[in-house]
Amino acid sequence: MVPLELISKISVENKAKIVYLVIDGLGGLPSKEGKTELESAFKPNLDELASESICGLSIPVSFGITPGSGPGHLSLFGYDPLKYEIGRGALSAAGIGFHQGENDLAARINFATLDSTGRITDRRAGRIPTSKAAQLCRLIEENLKLKEAKVFIRAEKEHRGVVIFRGKGLSDRLTDSDPQVAGISPLVVKAKEKKAQPAAKMVNEFLSKVKKILKAELPANMILMRGFAKVPSLPQMGDIFKLNAAAIAVYPMYKGIARLLGMEIIEAGENIADEFNALKKNFSKFNFFFVHIKGTDSAGEDGDFERKVKVIEQLDANLSKLRQLNPEVIVVASDHSTPAALKLHSWHPSPFMLRSRWCRRDEVKNFSEKECLRGGLGLFPAIDIMPLALANALKLKKLGA
Amino acid sequence: MVPLELISKISVENKAKIVYLVIDGLGGLPSKEGKTELESAFKPNLDELASESICGLSIPVSFGITPGSGPGHLSLFGYDPLKYEIGRGALSAAGIGFHQGENDLAARINFATLDSTGRITDRRAGRIPTSKAAQLCRLIEENLKLKEAKVFIRAEKEHRGVVIFRGKGLSDRLTDSDPQVAGISPLVVKAKEKKAQPAAKMVNEFLSKVKKILKAELPANMILMRGFAKVPSLPQMGDIFKLNAAAIAVYPMYKGIARLLGMEIIEAGENIADEFNALKKNFSKFNFFFVHIKGTDSAGEDGDFERKVKVIEQLDANLSKLRQLNPEVIVVASDHSTPAALKLHSWHPSPFMLRSRWCRRDEVKNFSEKECLRGGLGLFPAIDIMPLALANALKLKKLGA
Repeated sequence: MVPLELISKISVENKAKIVYLVIDGLGGLPSKEGKTELESAFKPNLDELASESICGLSIPVSFGITPGSGPGHLSLFGYDPLKYEIGRGALSAAGIGFHQGENDLAARINFATLDSTGRITDRRAGRIPTSKAAQLCRLIEENLKLKEAKVFIRAEKEHRGVVIFRGKGLSDRLTDSDPQVAGISPLVVKAKEKKAQPAAKMVNEFLSKVKKILKAELPANMILMRGFAKVPSLPQMGDIFKLNAAAIAVYPMYKGIARLLGMEIIEAGENIADEFNALKKNFSKFNFFFVHIKGTDSAGEDGDFERKVKVIEQLDANLSKLRQLNPEVIVVASDHSTPAALKLHSWHPSPFMLRSRWCRRDEVKNFSEKECLRGGLGLFPAIDIMPLALANALKLKKLGA
Repeated sequence: MVPLELISKISVENKAKIVYLVIDGLGGLPSKEGKTELESAFKPNLDELASESICGLSIPVSFGITPGSGPGHLSLFGYDPLKYEIGRGALSAAGIGFHQGENDLAARINFATLDSTGRITDRRAGRIPTSKAAQLCRLIEENLKLKEAKVFIRAEKEHRGVVIFRGKGLSDRLTDSDPQVAGISPLVVKAKEKKAQPAAKMVNEFLSKVKKILKAELPANMILMRGFAKVPSLPQMGDIFKLNAAAIAVYPMYKGIARLLGMEIIEAGENIADEFNALKKNFSKFNFFFVHIKGTDSAGEDGDFERKVKVIEQLDANLSKLRQLNPEVIVVASDHSTPAALKLHSWHPSPFMLRSRWCRRDEVKNFSEKECLRGGLGLFPAIDIMPLALANALKLKKLGA
């Protein structure tokens, strides 16, 4: 890995275009028939692309480490996830498409159930439906005022949500109110350093007002807060890589991450075909495109092997649209594996390929976990994908004289 | 490599069991017949296990670096050997099975020969037999008293031994008395910092008393001291990895290292069969087992290719006992290579395999240096074995949201 500071010194602008196709949770594990999701799919176009590419298996963070979506994508874009962090609250704000500004303090919330003595009996309020949570969020927003900040409160999914406090000088160096266990009362939020004391006082006042507003709303008669975070100040892709970058993603979370890195968000539509159409439509306007495919990860998390196979086949059927555009560099990568057998993100390395005129193609003819291992990149760190892509687009000068 | 601090934040306790079979000095070099020790051995059980595993070649510390037993094992257990250190004295104390407490200052000693002018003529006292060294240790211990500390002095092997000073506030920031060359006098021990001055004074007084006691004991008429070390405070495996760990090892040194990392020591008996019986007997009591096989390394150091092959075959014949226990994760690894052709520890990567339900098995069918290189892990750092083992036991949460 080469630090971003150094990359920024040797990166140069040119017209070459890079398309970064990120197939979320692509890597898998074999079913009883002995084949992974990717090996089971009919994917002539991905295989043809592999035969023109240099292939490998990318390690998201480090051996054995399973990344969440934040660290997984940071790594793909060349940001060391052990150095750069998107706080939980900021990721949640990004996830609901909330544009967090520099004066916005965000936190993840759970609706929860308290008993008559104030102790938590259910940290998830019986997993109330999203619509109910949205209604309660409106109830709080309409009935609560703070003099220190404007409050935005939004539902995410089921009992989950996000609160954003917009006010001056609010520090995120705060402890959680969520004790992460039931049977005790919510915790008082404390300042981790002196300058966070006003924010702590405000949040505690906010929580006591919320408690009154939700009093009659069993099972969701309280909220728990965690992961207080200001918007992270991440080096911007335009500055470091001299890229004019755009993101095409259906899910808000990935648009949010892309925005934090300095990408423009393109209207992506609702499915893979829409995404490729959006790519075509905007192809002349940018020289870097992050195209995010979500269905593989969702199917993997649901343990639905067949659906994951079908998403891969659907993507494959759309791949000609990308090939017709003929960008100088095509990268097909993934932020992590999500084997249907595990129903979780996992630590397993991800199939990877890069096609360019200069890629030094290898002998891989089949885009699969097994074959990629024998590719020209072998097993390699995902964080090195970005410099590789830039190099193949002739966007990196030599280091030293 | 991910720092232990981060691993400790994502590790969780569960019931899954990990068996870490460490075959000391396993890797080798080809004999004239062109096969390594491992390739020459009849080992159907290791090969069968390999066909169910993900395989690789682990690099103990870094390319070209040959580890001693301390760094080699630290790496296997996930401790960066360039960051964490077990001082020479502490390793020697561990090596003779001495339980070094926090008030114990240990040092490695050599019996040596001084001429009539006080100059060293032989740093190894003609390699006196261990029994003679043990007798001289008793002689010193019985005739020497210090007011600052209680002294323990023990023979190790031949001219080698250990001294332990038990007293309050003794610093180990001391220079050696052993000049590492003959022809000059032993050095005065000096404090490397002010707070070590009392310890330096005590050690010099000790050395002058030893000189008097050994006056007539030619060729062992003096001792040389080096590697002063307090017991290292290493993060404990229970804390970092949430493991309830036990060690099964025949040699005291490995028990000592395991104890320093927070493992319980199980009575292991005297040979490989005993060790596997001890594993079976204690299998319900722990969720991590370090099983150490020493014979491969000893045979390698003796340059005895055939004996090393036989130890591997003997281990293979016992492997069914491990398989019957069916732990969730089986790791077969090595701290370093000890090629019989070299008669020394070496830098060569070590054959490795890991079997679990989630390992993403590769196409390796034969547990050997050559085949492991083509395994799913390829050539990879030994320090990443521990996170991989934990991940495969589902003992690591995902990193970030």
